[in-house]
Amino acid sequence: MVQNQAKYEKVINYIKENILKGDWPIGSKIPSQRKLAELFGVNRSTIVTALEELKADGLLEGVMGKGTIVVNNTWTLLATSPPPDWNETASSNLTKATQLGSVEGSEEHQDHFIQLSKGELAQDIFPTDHMQQVMMRLAGSLEPFGYEEPKGFLPLREAISEYMNRQGTEVSPSSILIVSGALQGLQLISAGLLYRGSTILLEKPSYLYSLQVFQSAGMKLLGLPMDDQGMNAAAIKKHYENEQSILYTIPCFHNPTGILMTEERRRELLNVCEQLRLPIIEDDIYRELWIDGPPPPSLKSLDQHGHVLYLGSLSKTLSPGLRIGWIAGPEQVIDRLADIKRQTDYGSSSLSQRVAAEWISSGLYENHLSFVREQLEKRRTKAMQILDDYMKDLAEWNVPAGGFLIWLKLKVKIPYKELYSKAYQQGILLNPGSIYTEESVPAIRLSYGYASMEDFEKGIKQLREIILKNR
Amino acid sequence: MVQNQAKYEKVINYIKENILKGDWPIGSKIPSQRKLAELFGVNRSTIVTALEELKADGLLEGVMGKGTIVVNNTWTLLATSPPPDWNETASSNLTKATQLGSVEGSEEHQDHFIQLSKGELAQDIFPTDHMQQVMMRLAGSLEPFGYEEPKGFLPLREAISEYMNRQGTEVSPSSILIVSGALQGLQLISAGLLYRGSTILLEKPSYLYSLQVFQSAGMKLLGLPMDDQGMNAAAIKKHYENEQSILYTIPCFHNPTGILMTEERRRELLNVCEQLRLPIIEDDIYRELWIDGPPPPSLKSLDQHGHVLYLGSLSKTLSPGLRIGWIAGPEQVIDRLADIKRQTDYGSSSLSQRVAAEWISSGLYENHLSFVREQLEKRRTKAMQILDDYMKDLAEWNVPAGGFLIWLKLKVKIPYKELYSKAYQQGILLNPGSIYTEESVPAIRLSYGYASMEDFEKGIKQLREIILKNR
Ligand SMILES: Cc1ncc(COP(=O)(O)O)c(C=O)c1O
Ligand SMILES: Cc1ncc(COP(=O)(O)O)c(C=O)c1O
Repeated sequence: MVQNQAKYEKVINYIKENILKGDWPIGSKIPSQRKLAELFGVNRSTIVTALEELKADGLLEGVMGKGTIVVNNTWTLLATSPPPDWNETASSNLTKATQLGSVEGSEEHQDHFIQLSKGELAQDIFPTDHMQQVMMRLAGSLEPFGYEEPKGFLPLREAISEYMNRQGTEVSPSSILIVSGALQGLQLISAGLLYRGSTILLEKPSYLYSLQVFQSAGMKLLGLPMDDQGMNAAAIKKHYENEQSILYTIPCFHNPTGILMTEERRRELLNVCEQLRLPIIEDDIYRELWIDGPPPPSLKSLDQHGHVLYLGSLSKTLSPGLRIGWIAGPEQVIDRLADIKRQTDYGSSSLSQRVAAEWISSGLYENHLSFVREQLEKRRTKAMQILDDYMKDLAEWNVPAGGFLIWLKLKVKIPYKELYSKAYQQGILLNPGSIYTEESVPAIRLSYGYASMEDFEKGIKQLREIILKNR
Repeated sequence: MVQNQAKYEKVINYIKENILKGDWPIGSKIPSQRKLAELFGVNRSTIVTALEELKADGLLEGVMGKGTIVVNNTWTLLATSPPPDWNETASSNLTKATQLGSVEGSEEHQDHFIQLSKGELAQDIFPTDHMQQVMMRLAGSLEPFGYEEPKGFLPLREAISEYMNRQGTEVSPSSILIVSGALQGLQLISAGLLYRGSTILLEKPSYLYSLQVFQSAGMKLLGLPMDDQGMNAAAIKKHYENEQSILYTIPCFHNPTGILMTEERRRELLNVCEQLRLPIIEDDIYRELWIDGPPPPSLKSLDQHGHVLYLGSLSKTLSPGLRIGWIAGPEQVIDRLADIKRQTDYGSSSLSQRVAAEWISSGLYENHLSFVREQLEKRRTKAMQILDDYMKDLAEWNVPAGGFLIWLKLKVKIPYKELYSKAYQQGILLNPGSIYTEESVPAIRLSYGYASMEDFEKGIKQLREIILKNR
């Protein structure tokens, strides 16, 4: 009896604490009586008595056919209703993405999964030693840091300016805005420059489809076909709608297809956009990951009239954890975006900015890039061999000239949802092609940049078996 | 004059539209000044002024012997028209703030100014040595870092959870979201939980008025009166409008007035909000800067029903450059906000998060806080003496019980715009009270946290002279 009393109180306290701390918010269903009984190793009757007391206290309520609910409201209510200004597509996408747990940046942190799609470089490519050196150097010459200049730490902007000039894209430090990754860059452009209802022309498939940034701001995505030269520039004219349109493109080692836009296509694209006065966002964050040879000039470097806003980032080459990217464009535009950035988060981390400045200005960054390219070349060779071994009869793919992405187009008909959930059950994480198009598409985005090649082989082999069993 | 203004704007819009539509392509000559003057029935001087503005914006250029030429378009045009989804108030505020160059976070980076209002701690309070140590330690045990978990680096959330528990506010690590400063926290709440058209009840004056986050999202700010106990809780009922309202408060060392909300008032406030089911944002980033004694319990710790979303930050105590803050609240709400955060920038800097975790979990942070309090006490004593010496006949103020802000209410009538611009010309930066209320108000926000006390005295002395000369 005393023991029962103690347990009974334990149950009460457990529930109260969860509600008090807000861990079980108002409106949420508490665990079933059976589960609670198991958890505490007591009879269900003990649980029933405890719940009755909490109901009497006004903390819980029994709801017909729903179980026992925490009663009260405010924030939790707000959080459980659909997001206020996000349209249907966006929020259902969010749910989709979250459920799959495998979209850009939301990748599982369960280390036991084989990550066949993960959009970042493997841990063994991360330059731990040099990062240590850079941090030591920085610590040695540390000065107090406060809120940064709106456009970002000047030495970093200078370093990026020089680095881009070496790459052939001339940009002055005052035409550069430091952002917390290219994604934030897109976010700022969306908030500060685009209109609700704008149309965004882009490659189909595209990374952008996996984001809510634009859809949630009420913008329409209009996908244009691609061939092995890149986005079909001629199609732009056909689809171009109005003055509030812009164009978004990933010309280098496109996400998710890996395609590299040729120089000819770049010139054609720029030409068409100039005629239509269609502003361009050039997302060039994969540029440095070339394997077969340096990519053609950036659109920005070919652009004579301030048509192009350029996005760069250290995420795919050095580390996504730094959260350092940049926007380069006409100075007035950069000034406007800097204002928005300041109103958004007062600027990016001083530490990250200083570390990035040191990496780039010391030349360590460019050395590291050579190493990354070597690694990617080895990985690509191996990955192609593995696909040849296991996928030749089941799928088609291109050999990417750089980056780490492969767009695996399946030749067999299978129920895709089942494919992904089966793979998940077997510990394999895949990004379904549909994430990048908003429609069901018989393709999978693969990455040879992250998993070990042993895991990659294991995963592809298992994938083959799942496909064979389900077709 | 008003008519002229209207015509002038017509000219500007006419030219912009022609460029936007591509009717006047880049490199083309625009109509002569005479023709434009005829077209609009205005003096040539009006046309000249309009063209000058467009030249300053980078849209036009005078070319010797050629007349005026269109030089830019697309992005620049987007950037020079009013921001798309920002309402009038917000954008005119932005301009105001930018012109003054002295709003939160936009403070001048000109070191020769005397910063009488700057909202951060002085450089000599920055713990350079310990920051070096922390960075060395981190470098010594560095592991590769990629995209972080959506809610933020777990050891940091654990450290914050323990730290808040020691402060008397119980929060579990899963109920904490790491953000890039409290400002981003507000941004995420606005984007993810609030509705366009929501009403935000808040203190008047308030830091929030200086931000565009909420106004630009179409929300209405409704200022409530304050007394020396804090926000007038009884006034809430009178002003409360609808279910989509929320309340924002800075109970500890309020920005800009420095007022500390009493425990009694906190309970009353919470009571009223519970009755109205009015969710609360508690911006508690100044809590640790107490001088006379620890502040009363946080609203969050008194809250039994998940009514309170709590904001913390390292900006005012350790360093704004880290860009580390946090939101604590019901887990479901935190999950939702984490989703938005992921879609905004994929999480905060891994470096900053690791540095922050080391500061807090090692106890260095709490040691540093004692040092900061000592410094602030000394500075407050000196600042009070200086104000007594120079301002007694001209202004009124409270002795703040913590923080570093003083709300200096002037007793004399003077033209305020002139006051600020004269001060600026003399190298003194001030935050006018109007930034915090959206109306002209005879007050200045002072800070004794940043300038050296010699500069503070010099600045106040000069301020006195400016006031005397201009009243
Ligand atoms: C094409 C593209 N742009 C932008 C991003 C975002 O990168 P960041 O980490 O710089 O925000 C990604 C990340 O996957 C990407 O693939
Ligand atoms: C009341 C208040 N909240 C939030 C902030 C923003 O702080 P953070 O640097 O953490 O974004 C400030 C900065 O001045 C502030 O005064």
